[in-house]
Amino acid sequence: MKAVLYYGKEDLRIEDVEEPQLRSGAVKIAPAYNGICGSDLHLYHDGPIPPAPTEQEPHPLSGETLPVVLGHEFSGVVEEVGEGVTGLSVGASVVVEPLMVDGTCPACRQGAYNLCEKMGFIGISGRGGGLSEHIVVDKEWVHPVGEMPLDHAAMIEPLAVAVHSVQHSRVKSGQTAVVGGAGPIGLMVASVLKAYNVTTIISEPSQTRRQVAQQSDVADFVVDPVNEDLSKAVASHTDQAGAEVAFDAAGAGPVVGQLLDVLAPAGRLEVVALHSSPVELDITAQLTMQDREMGSTIGYAHDHAEAIELVRSGKVNLEPFITSRILADDIVEQGFNRLIENKDSEVKILVSMS
Amino acid sequence: MKAVLYYGKEDLRIEDVEEPQLRSGAVKIAPAYNGICGSDLHLYHDGPIPPAPTEQEPHPLSGETLPVVLGHEFSGVVEEVGEGVTGLSVGASVVVEPLMVDGTCPACRQGAYNLCEKMGFIGISGRGGGLSEHIVVDKEWVHPVGEMPLDHAAMIEPLAVAVHSVQHSRVKSGQTAVVGGAGPIGLMVASVLKAYNVTTIISEPSQTRRQVAQQSDVADFVVDPVNEDLSKAVASHTDQAGAEVAFDAAGAGPVVGQLLDVLAPAGRLEVVALHSSPVELDITAQLTMQDREMGSTIGYAHDHAEAIELVRSGKVNLEPFITSRILADDIVEQGFNRLIENKDSEVKILVSMS
Repeated sequence: MKAVLYYGKEDLRIEDVEEPQLRSGAVKIAPAYNGICGSDLHLYHDGPIPPAPTEQEPHPLSGETLPVVLGHEFSGVVEEVGEGVTGLSVGASVVVEPLMVDGTCPACRQGAYNLCEKMGFIGISGRGGGLSEHIVVDKEWVHPVGEMPLDHAAMIEPLAVAVHSVQHSRVKSGQTAVVGGAGPIGLMVASVLKAYNVTTIISEPSQTRRQVAQQSDVADFVVDPVNEDLSKAVASHTDQAGAEVAFDAAGAGPVVGQLLDVLAPAGRLEVVALHSSPVELDITAQLTMQDREMGSTIGYAHDHAEAIELVRSGKVNLEPFITSRILADDIVEQGFNRLIENKDSEVKILVSMS
Repeated sequence: MKAVLYYGKEDLRIEDVEEPQLRSGAVKIAPAYNGICGSDLHLYHDGPIPPAPTEQEPHPLSGETLPVVLGHEFSGVVEEVGEGVTGLSVGASVVVEPLMVDGTCPACRQGAYNLCEKMGFIGISGRGGGLSEHIVVDKEWVHPVGEMPLDHAAMIEPLAVAVHSVQHSRVKSGQTAVVGGAGPIGLMVASVLKAYNVTTIISEPSQTRRQVAQQSDVADFVVDPVNEDLSKAVASHTDQAGAEVAFDAAGAGPVVGQLLDVLAPAGRLEVVALHSSPVELDITAQLTMQDREMGSTIGYAHDHAEAIELVRSGKVNLEPFITSRILADDIVEQGFNRLIENKDSEVKILVSMS
């Protein structure tokens, strides 16, 4: 079968590889659409970092070294059902929760498998990936999506990231939240907040991204934090009280301080972006004197069902986030390169094998 | 009447001042015992900082400049009851929640009066203090303590700080918490945790303070983080899982990192100390990759009733925290100076006027 193989930095090859064999407790899936994620971009442009293996160092759970099949945000159709699998039938539309976990570490034992010590991703760490004609996945990671279109289903994975973060933030219906950064994850977070009846204010310096945010209709207000005073804008939209929660979906040091400044008394900052360098935090002034809290999460655990339900019920509309559809043959030029060149206008590029 | 007046840095005087007059909606109290607090020490040794007024600059709510009567952690007996006051009778033992608040700011409007923009303290910002023969306090800040001994009652105020912090941390019965620092607030936090059936591990570098912690019987385990590996000690007491919550009651930068390292997956750091300088926080490594959160609080709001109930029910025993009893005449030498000279062995010094 054909698959997109990741060999290392700037080295992707579409090759013929052996088709995976169905096993007991698993299903064989024909992948339909793959979203390109920030981590795919990093792998391509910067080379392998964990949880990707290297040529020499296998991933501890998959045991595989490079090359690996790429693609971890994907939907597909069940082709074959293994022994002992119930609730999944041939022809069903599904999404894959693309994880591999140890199962016995302290985090796994308490159900927080996103924090597994050995954590790996299907499509990054081995065990195949969505950019192939077939993949075999253990049933526990396969979620049926009913009648949901397969292109939308490919975005359930990043939506689950947003669901996990929003639930961690403890934001409640009727409250106000500020989302700093309208990249793909910021938009997903805003769409979950909207579904939860939270008044949402997006803060985004890029005009193009502000337009995308407005067009996707996920925010009640969109603010330009460079030419407007964000604190004042939030105060004016909240009867001077401030926002109960702010989400850092930017991962830039100064945004942390900016978002802490918009919080209501006893507010919470939730970080859903990765920060490449430490930030200086004045705990007393920025947290203590206002009874504040901050939290942060990585990935998802037990969140796919909720993400699927939000889309199936119509509370979240993923259609506006699809900005391009391409074929695997064009993944470098029209995928990775375009996501960097048009980083403000592209949200999700969906890739299919044929 | 006699009162201890704070004139500024290293300038306390016991003088005769006019006795305050009872007013409608208030009660007149004869203070019994005053605890000396870290902020009293700072005022004495370093001079006035907000919420204390200066000689020129009055506090915005009291309108008073220096000198002010000192003493904000105090118990007393009701002497007279003003018009319209119910539930408080002459002879009743009480504690004063020593606050003055604006009442109309966003924090006050949502009940978080500890975050009031203009926040002041009786005994620091004006309106009298506990180190006097009489004080008149509005009924809303006066809490009856029933049969509780008046020396114990003088410690309800710092216990309310601990209650507020522990409740903010969301720690649950049956979980494990690490308390970094066994000063007065660390010990109070540990005593509340014990009352809530939380397994408590105190980490304290001072041998004397470790002894005090052991003698006051508030911790299940006491660890020396200098000569022992705190993370390993916590792991060994938690079946390798780590602590669900850690409390920073030290206010020292390195302790923040040390306490984050003892947390279980999805754990929480709660800061209950003031930090005099910012800390460098690696959000991704120290929070995100473990779904962690951190919170911090100042003071208390609606916590006195719970603090009183914990003592009245016998779940918290404040007796071990009283390490000295002195008279107001000796407050400098046997109070402020001794708290600095014997900072590791003294917990609470109680001062009375006569």
